Amino acid sequence: MKGIFITFEGPDGAGKTTQLQKLAQEITALGYDVVVTREPGGTSISDRIRSIILSPENKEMTDQAEVLLYAASRAQHVHELILPAIEAGKVVLCDRFIDASVAYQAYGLGVDREMVTSINRYASSGLQAERTYLLDVPVEVSQHRLRQRAAGTQTELQLDRIEQKGFEYHSRVRDGFHQIAAEEPQRVKVIDANRTEAEIAEDILIDCKRLLEVHLSG
Amino acid sequence: MKGIFITFEGPDGAGKTTQLQKLAQEITALGYDVVVTREPGGTSISDRIRSIILSPENKEMTDQAEVLLYAASRAQHVHELILPAIEAGKVVLCDRFIDASVAYQAYGLGVDREMVTSINRYASSGLQAERTYLLDVPVEVSQHRLRQRAAGTQTELQLDRIEQKGFEYHSRVRDGFHQIAAEEPQRVKVIDANRTEAEIAEDILIDCKRLLEVHLSG
Repeated sequence: MKGIFITFEGPDGAGKTTQLQKLAQEITALGYDVVVTREPGGTSISDRIRSIILSPENKEMTDQAEVLLYAASRAQHVHELILPAIEAGKVVLCDRFIDASVAYQAYGLGVDREMVTSINRYASSGLQAERTYLLDVPVEVSQHRLRQRAAGTQTELQLDRIEQKGFEYHSRVRDGFHQIAAEEPQRVKVIDANRTEAEIAEDILIDCKRLLEVHLSG
Repeated sequence: MKGIFITFEGPDGAGKTTQLQKLAQEITALGYDVVVTREPGGTSISDRIRSIILSPENKEMTDQAEVLLYAASRAQHVHELILPAIEAGKVVLCDRFIDASVAYQAYGLGVDREMVTSINRYASSGLQAERTYLLDVPVEVSQHRLRQRAAGTQTELQLDRIEQKGFEYHSRVRDGFHQIAAEEPQRVKVIDANRTEAEIAEDILIDCKRLLEVHLSG
């Protein structure tokens, strides 16, 4: 059997990581050989790049450098880990992929979308997921969950300014994800993530089982 | 006065760094405000990226990741250091720039040249040098100089294999530099670097003084 590549997308606070782990457990129990990975990161070189991208020291990073670092991290991840795993017949579940770059960098930061797409197509040698679960929640909800996670680490005043700035940015990011889903409905399944973990997990599992059965018989 | 951007290109072992330092001294003595920098590197973020690119541990780095990391380092360098210095009226002398990516990655590694150019045009927001000094030596000469630098660090046998592999690669790189120079003769001055340091320095200084005078009067 040839492997398959499945991605999870959506804002921080939508529950991607939890749902990805749940799905991995379920389909491992069904007998599939599952690899769980994430971006940015996933390999030793990609993790070194991730630490530059996410380091709070690097406030002066330009948009161009950010776009190119995410793509460089992805290039190493795709060629060193994802493609060999697919080739070896595994089900690869990845937390974020190119859609995140399009949503956050093109829609969020305002970088030319064609440029983001072109750079990432080069980075991934054209690899795209066969299925993407887009965990969708209103910005108010994801921001509220993030605020809860951050509670105790910042003062109320600082948080308000960050959240205020964050709201418009994250609204553009959400619009970007919706736009991608509208363009590629066969690949991207929009999952209402403003529900219980169990409800969300059930929707994803039903779709994924069907996908794997079709894939196996294909 | 608006600043000016001048680059040095050519293989390792051609004497770029020496010549760049000599030129910097000479034109500083003429009263110009000079900034000396290099790629990959030049800023804190770019230096962190440089350490990933050059780390001997990272043997598994894919060509795509290498291309994108060089471009990311350049994006940060251009926007954080080079453009502000030009804006402030300085003469910026830079050891390697986009031509090196075209020669080493497109001609040397075989990456699509249009892709390398497009990614780097994005990274640099279209910045190109007003003058490039291409220090040209036969591959045998640059390889011999590198072999002398490396002497004592490796055994003869290992060195021979590396040099053997290196020769074809570096021949393609030199062809790449020649191709760029043929396409842009107004910008790229080919300097015969198989001569004494003083002879090379004199050629560069004569051309650079003329360039700066025209630039000042313009």
